Amino acid sequence: MQRIINDPNLVVEDMLEGFVKCHKDILHVSSDNPRVVVSNTAKNKPRVGIVTGGGSGHKPAFIGYCGKNMVDAVAIGEIFSSPTAKSFYDCFREVDQGMGVACLYGNYAGDNMNVKLAMELADDDDIEVKTVVANDDVASAPKTEREKRRGVAGEILMWKVGGAMAAKGASLDEVIRVSQKAIDHTRSIGVGLSSCTIPANGKPNFEIKPGTMEFGIGHHGEPGIKVEPLGTAKDMAKEMVEMVVNDLPFQNRDEVVVLVSGLGSTPVMEQYIYYNEVEKLLTEKGIRIYKSYVGNYFTSLEMNGITLSLMELDDELKECIDMDVNTMGLVQAE
Amino acid sequence: MQRIINDPNLVVEDMLEGFVKCHKDILHVSSDNPRVVVSNTAKNKPRVGIVTGGGSGHKPAFIGYCGKNMVDAVAIGEIFSSPTAKSFYDCFREVDQGMGVACLYGNYAGDNMNVKLAMELADDDDIEVKTVVANDDVASAPKTEREKRRGVAGEILMWKVGGAMAAKGASLDEVIRVSQKAIDHTRSIGVGLSSCTIPANGKPNFEIKPGTMEFGIGHHGEPGIKVEPLGTAKDMAKEMVEMVVNDLPFQNRDEVVVLVSGLGSTPVMEQYIYYNEVEKLLTEKGIRIYKSYVGNYFTSLEMNGITLSLMELDDELKECIDMDVNTMGLVQAE
Repeated sequence: MQRIINDPNLVVEDMLEGFVKCHKDILHVSSDNPRVVVSNTAKNKPRVGIVTGGGSGHKPAFIGYCGKNMVDAVAIGEIFSSPTAKSFYDCFREVDQGMGVACLYGNYAGDNMNVKLAMELADDDDIEVKTVVANDDVASAPKTEREKRRGVAGEILMWKVGGAMAAKGASLDEVIRVSQKAIDHTRSIGVGLSSCTIPANGKPNFEIKPGTMEFGIGHHGEPGIKVEPLGTAKDMAKEMVEMVVNDLPFQNRDEVVVLVSGLGSTPVMEQYIYYNEVEKLLTEKGIRIYKSYVGNYFTSLEMNGITLSLMELDDELKECIDMDVNTMGLVQAE
Repeated sequence: MQRIINDPNLVVEDMLEGFVKCHKDILHVSSDNPRVVVSNTAKNKPRVGIVTGGGSGHKPAFIGYCGKNMVDAVAIGEIFSSPTAKSFYDCFREVDQGMGVACLYGNYAGDNMNVKLAMELADDDDIEVKTVVANDDVASAPKTEREKRRGVAGEILMWKVGGAMAAKGASLDEVIRVSQKAIDHTRSIGVGLSSCTIPANGKPNFEIKPGTMEFGIGHHGEPGIKVEPLGTAKDMAKEMVEMVVNDLPFQNRDEVVVLVSGLGSTPVMEQYIYYNEVEKLLTEKGIRIYKSYVGNYFTSLEMNGITLSLMELDDELKECIDMDVNTMGLVQAE
């Protein structure tokens, strides 16, 4: 493993220590729980708290979206493992100001279980928690079984929208309604060109043969839906735009947010080459791009590959997307 | 090559097309020259223009630092090749408002030659151009021959400072003085864990054997100063902090900016693990960190590795570092 780490068993500790030192103007570690980070603006005014959480190895996700007008507290798991119920619960306690907490997270068995347990604990404290479970990955189950689909990079748009609603002073029900709409309007798909290795394991999670690409690969190396000979950026964009656009379906004259994310070791140059093809295909379809994000927004350790997420906008979602945020992963000026 | 590209000979065209579409709110292509991008704020008020340029493959550098309060125009070269003299000259013409142009670029033979030629052309048009040539890479020549050293990630801090001075309405001489101070106060060093491949060549530029790491590697794979068995993040940080700190020299109680950049395929998680070690070492030395940047700020295609840059601050430089900027590579709110 050509890696820049110390003890392979302590990568989360070491990363977190560096992260918090670097971004102390944005967030801090909870004094109750070393696996919970809290935005410095979490209690800057009375409002609904926004919580998320997930396994590590996806940086900037999840802690990179903790900050002003986005996520207030994040529960941190081991590499590719759910945070504990206790950590989710401690997040709820950190951010609740009596107006309730919106827990906006991705659809994985461990997270579902631990959020549920954490909500039972919170209930004993009279903290009201409601959830939105992201399931934007079109490759992970058929359209008719959306409840089985995984949450992937589209979660970032859900957090952006939920955080904006909370910042505007919306009630918990309103924050939940619009966050749910955000994910219902979002579809994602990934392509993998290489595997990744959990440092403590020391060998690749799965295999992608050189000269091939795997569509629909999950953020932890969950198997994709098809392996093909490695194509051009245009080939990849074409397959992926079709899969995403046909699923929603997106319509001519729709306005969308485009989010293209590298999976960890994908050079940024290549991400723009890919984005250029996506833009051409959407323009051909008469779909208008309102805003684009291109970069390493939601990664899988050192996996090589790229994900595409599209969110169909209405005026309410657009206003949320426009709101300023200040996080490590996303800075948007007023 | 497991790459997300189309024609290997057209990666710069394709990347640039995608980049400009994605960031049209920040910059545009010059109508005179497809290899020049110009900030949309380049002529928002009368002031000194800031120009840079360099080879492609270093994204976000160079075009990712074009925008409000940073660089006004960028000359774009092929992968790892200098832009033409004509492109530098067209940059000067795009941004000159009669107060002159500061051309802040890195010390490479091709760039030196082409900037010089471009300045001769500009002179015929009565455009006053002065330069600062970045040479922050301590590994590329001994301290006694600083004029031979290459410019690397420290250039970002030079652009940040130069752009801030221009935004404040400083004269050309003042912009040059403070930009020169910025780079004189900055030292950088890199470590490589893998090579990179120029797409049109199709084979690695050089070799780094698995199980080894190479200190002092250049941004184009220029040979480093020593190859060692692959160490921990702590080992790397220790070697690199020593090389940088001893070169300036940085003193106890100095305040510094720290810039840690991945080289292209280095996971962001690992960059924070590395940063954590740097922070500990600087703290031990009594050097105070005023601000830190950690991320893919100046890359070399898909090279695996990391660079460390430190800039020693005074009040003037600090004010410049604090100024808000809006570019693809760096967004800093007011």
